[in-house]
Amino acid sequence: MTIRKLFEPNSVAVVGASRDSDKLGHKILKNLVEADFEGKIYPVNPKADEILGLKCYPSLEEAPKKTQLAVIAVPAKLVPSVLEECSENNVSNAIVISGGFSEVGEEGEELERETMEVAEEMGIRILGPNCQGINNTSTGLCASWPFIDQEGPISIVAQSGTVGAAIETWAQDENIGISKFAMLGNKADIDEADLIDYLADDDDTGVIALYLEGVEKGRKFLEAAKRAAEEKPVVVLKGGRTRRGAEAVKSHTQSLAGEYKIFKSACKQAGLIQVNSIGELYDVCKGLAALSEPENKDTVIISSSGGAGILAVDASEGLDVNLIDLPEKSVERLEEALPAECILNNPLDLTGSATAEMYDETIKILARYKDIRNIVVIVGDPIPGIADVIKERFERVTMVPVMLGLGEEGAEEEEELKDSGIPVFSDPERAMKALGAL
Amino acid sequence: MTIRKLFEPNSVAVVGASRDSDKLGHKILKNLVEADFEGKIYPVNPKADEILGLKCYPSLEEAPKKTQLAVIAVPAKLVPSVLEECSENNVSNAIVISGGFSEVGEEGEELERETMEVAEEMGIRILGPNCQGINNTSTGLCASWPFIDQEGPISIVAQSGTVGAAIETWAQDENIGISKFAMLGNKADIDEADLIDYLADDDDTGVIALYLEGVEKGRKFLEAAKRAAEEKPVVVLKGGRTRRGAEAVKSHTQSLAGEYKIFKSACKQAGLIQVNSIGELYDVCKGLAALSEPENKDTVIISSSGGAGILAVDASEGLDVNLIDLPEKSVERLEEALPAECILNNPLDLTGSATAEMYDETIKILARYKDIRNIVVIVGDPIPGIADVIKERFERVTMVPVMLGLGEEGAEEEEELKDSGIPVFSDPERAMKALGAL
Repeated sequence: MTIRKLFEPNSVAVVGASRDSDKLGHKILKNLVEADFEGKIYPVNPKADEILGLKCYPSLEEAPKKTQLAVIAVPAKLVPSVLEECSENNVSNAIVISGGFSEVGEEGEELERETMEVAEEMGIRILGPNCQGINNTSTGLCASWPFIDQEGPISIVAQSGTVGAAIETWAQDENIGISKFAMLGNKADIDEADLIDYLADDDDTGVIALYLEGVEKGRKFLEAAKRAAEEKPVVVLKGGRTRRGAEAVKSHTQSLAGEYKIFKSACKQAGLIQVNSIGELYDVCKGLAALSEPENKDTVIISSSGGAGILAVDASEGLDVNLIDLPEKSVERLEEALPAECILNNPLDLTGSATAEMYDETIKILARYKDIRNIVVIVGDPIPGIADVIKERFERVTMVPVMLGLGEEGAEEEEELKDSGIPVFSDPERAMKALGAL
Repeated sequence: MTIRKLFEPNSVAVVGASRDSDKLGHKILKNLVEADFEGKIYPVNPKADEILGLKCYPSLEEAPKKTQLAVIAVPAKLVPSVLEECSENNVSNAIVISGGFSEVGEEGEELERETMEVAEEMGIRILGPNCQGINNTSTGLCASWPFIDQEGPISIVAQSGTVGAAIETWAQDENIGISKFAMLGNKADIDEADLIDYLADDDDTGVIALYLEGVEKGRKFLEAAKRAAEEKPVVVLKGGRTRRGAEAVKSHTQSLAGEYKIFKSACKQAGLIQVNSIGELYDVCKGLAALSEPENKDTVIISSSGGAGILAVDASEGLDVNLIDLPEKSVERLEEALPAECILNNPLDLTGSATAEMYDETIKILARYKDIRNIVVIVGDPIPGIADVIKERFERVTMVPVMLGLGEEGAEEEEELKDSGIPVFSDPERAMKALGAL
């Protein structure tokens, strides 16, 4: 049974919608309204006539028959009966936000089993329980929190709401944006493989970011991941890579973290990109989302800072980045165009007296050579006009901008780039990792 | 001969002071004025009577006799004659900002030799040439750029202006601040060892950050570094760790990067803390600067996010951090104080329903146990009041706050912490690295 209506419903009911702004049933409704969800929203609450200006229904049964997705945020015990009401309705997918299921022990496990029996009987696919919902920015379906409405190519599947939300928030802050966001919760029904399958075929998704703690159905996951990785980059961060981390995983999501070595080598075979921290997960996805795909890995580093250029070179060791020697003819042209103090190597050091014009000339000359497909542009000093230079040539080659602790003086140029959706990296190492993963 | 007056002059002459705001001779003068340098400032420029409201002298010779430090930003060829004028004066130290010396080839090498001969004759110690000056925030001696005036315990010695400036700027932005900042330039006289020696004895310096590309006098460096490391933490980032990076070092600072393996093991023996990126250099220095020194490495992680807690555990592998089991008695007390859904392990998961009160109770209970000297506080959701909780107990144990992509909702609490000089880390991995280096 498809999960398409989970992400693309025409209408959504929020069961447990609340007037109390501290409650999740309120937050989710508010986010749907503020994200301007393009379908119908039906709040369900027997004690209210209206919430946030929307007509409220006493029960899901009484909500309009065309409800396609139910977001459920009522006490755990009431969830099975809510699902039963779905039979009267068109609901094909439900997100169970409520906690109090298998994550809290035996009694919860029993309730989760019961809930899933009802869901199966009703023919409803379930995300959760105990999850942070989903988001689809292209339709304003922010059935989740925090409030995120910036569209972009990153889609996130995570076994931790916070890890997923951090990626969402950084992507929103930097104008990179996200496409879809799904929190797994207890994975009583829909699991990472189902979601990866959907995202593999989703045209709006350019890169899939995964945070996983444990994978129960290994073969199903790897098949889905492999198929997805053939379509688009899939980046995975595993929680519980260490013995002690694996113990913590067991407490957190009752998942078996498994042997990391085995997971790692299986992911490699499936063609996934593996990262080791949240920061790296974001950096790599940001690069994949916002940098153009290079034809090859031949790379030149341009810098106004010799030191930062050297650190970029050091950081490229072991990465899939090929630092080439400058083509002889380009050196001749660069010699004519640039002041004598510039060091015409790779890294190409424009020195502290670099100007936007010097960057422009350099990039113009280098971009002519077919050998040079990637240019890392390190800006180590506040350089007025540098944003325009980068913007103008951003599409021609794969350009990776790095702006290094420029403070207020550099903030304006950085903002200008971000406003255009151009990713800026704050240190050369992070930029090289992103480039290496392209 | 001492270099004390380099950092602690009563008066400073800016030779080559300029009215043109694009010139370094203007920027430096402006920064000295704006940082409110507490001694006298003498601009030297034969073509101006006054710059930035200060009386201008036609030559260094005609400047008041009590000049102790000369900052020289005139064309390279004029530098020797400027130094000759120092004989008429009290100048004991000079900073040669001007480029055009050994970094530009044979002719420059000759000029540098000549310059150093004059300096020796005049009994003047030289920083540079071709350097970005120095800063001493405690006296407002910002004889450098960018403008940095936030006092703090980090002192920086760097062979790249940009790398040093990035650390300064981040430390200013986050209210951590710096004490001293010195750019090495061509190291014709004063080298890293001289500066480390001075900083080892400097009471305002709590941690020394080094960015080095090549060290010519290995033994002198290691002796100074070892002595300094006995007094305070010394953190080093080496540029040119790889073969290709070492080649770039040669072009940049004419330094021999040397075998990194040898450098690494020598630094280890000398007791230095070694890092591998600018970001890590900053994170580790920030932690050393602003976190209290723990009695031991016994650590508990508290988190509102199970996932982020697990990633912190994974990140601690291989670091000098000891994740302990919660003391049995503390578990009893925590059970009484916290809702049933909390997971009382290490990481201690307060779950997504965590409140500031729950953090407060938890920290209060844990801090009673002598076994627990370090608490990593991960805030994975916007939690009103959390800044006050962290501030109140920040001095009692070593507390490492992590705030993870909270966006606007969390920004206020984060600002409140930063305003109090409390360091906040943006991801668990970076925080654990900082803790490991304490």
